[in-house]
Amino acid sequence: MRRFVIMGHRAITSADFKLDDLCGSTGRLDILLRCVNSAFFLSHDIRKDVEIVLMLLGEPNPPKTIRINGREVKYLNPDERSTAALIRNALLQKGEGERRCSPGIYVSERSYEEVLSNLSKESKMYYLHEQGEDVRSAQLAGDPTFVLGDDQDLTEVEEEILMRYDPKRLSLGPISYHADHCITLVNNELDRRRQ
Amino acid sequence: MRRFVIMGHRAITSADFKLDDLCGSTGRLDILLRCVNSAFFLSHDIRKDVEIVLMLLGEPNPPKTIRINGREVKYLNPDERSTAALIRNALLQKGEGERRCSPGIYVSERSYEEVLSNLSKESKMYYLHEQGEDVRSAQLAGDPTFVLGDDQDLTEVEEEILMRYDPKRLSLGPISYHADHCITLVNNELDRRRQ
Repeated sequence: MRRFVIMGHRAITSADFKLDDLCGSTGRLDILLRCVNSAFFLSHDIRKDVEIVLMLLGEPNPPKTIRINGREVKYLNPDERSTAALIRNALLQKGEGERRCSPGIYVSERSYEEVLSNLSKESKMYYLHEQGEDVRSAQLAGDPTFVLGDDQDLTEVEEEILMRYDPKRLSLGPISYHADHCITLVNNELDRRRQ
Repeated sequence: MRRFVIMGHRAITSADFKLDDLCGSTGRLDILLRCVNSAFFLSHDIRKDVEIVLMLLGEPNPPKTIRINGREVKYLNPDERSTAALIRNALLQKGEGERRCSPGIYVSERSYEEVLSNLSKESKMYYLHEQGEDVRSAQLAGDPTFVLGDDQDLTEVEEEILMRYDPKRLSLGPISYHADHCITLVNNELDRRRQ
């Protein structure tokens, strides 16, 4: 399983937003929506071996943690608006623990710390970072988890927490890319290795 | 200059569509919108050395040819909806020849044949195709133009026209990707060769 954890530093944590203004009023949830697209979509297919965790950390109820599993997910389309509708639906689900919102989409109040702690038990951690080792020449484990920021880098505290799990820093090229483009590049590298 | 030509086989050629239903009622214009994002956006920057040509070939007035130049473009945001608004505005422009719709965005009725004929004078043509040479090991010219389909491959006729310009076929990996993901991968390969 390939996993991606994306930090939505200001991403809205209530369903109180309009699908017509995803860029302006959602704390840049639009970035996370594009990450969902690049994590899962192949030409006429969905990647079943991918899981993405969106950490929504903005107001009013942080954290909200959305997990999407490629093996189970249904009703996922490549456009931003329909994915936003699925996330909004997830944010409406009341309850405790991790709740299934629609097939393959789960919501919880798990902290970033808890998410990483759980993932690190079965997965090697990678930190996508401009100062890292080139992904093309790096050794990559069979069950990798890639952690990345939205339009903001990880905070010092977030980085410190990640460091507990001895992540390898990986760079994707000589310039800095949008988060969704990073995921496309990582997926391609793993496809080439058939991992 | 890097150039991308994308065939929007069914993409709508009037401004008569709703920004709320980009996926359903526009002949998959949404695919082309995502291509614009991956062609131009860098983290906190826009690629000035990129030009994209969107061939809108659907009803009711094909072709409509939208050209976006990274050196000149303004008011471009990464989300689908705002790019769709710019394209819709372009489709409203009446006139003859190529018209400037907003900074860096042009519309014309140029045919695919005319577009390729013009570009081939100053640019080496590449055909993104699963059966091509691996992009990572291929020789690439300084001013490349990459031609690709939307969710449909080039038609036989489109392919025949492209073949007149002796394109090199390039493959991006072992599986078939969405058009916007292809552009991200090509941009990354070219970024790496600059250094």
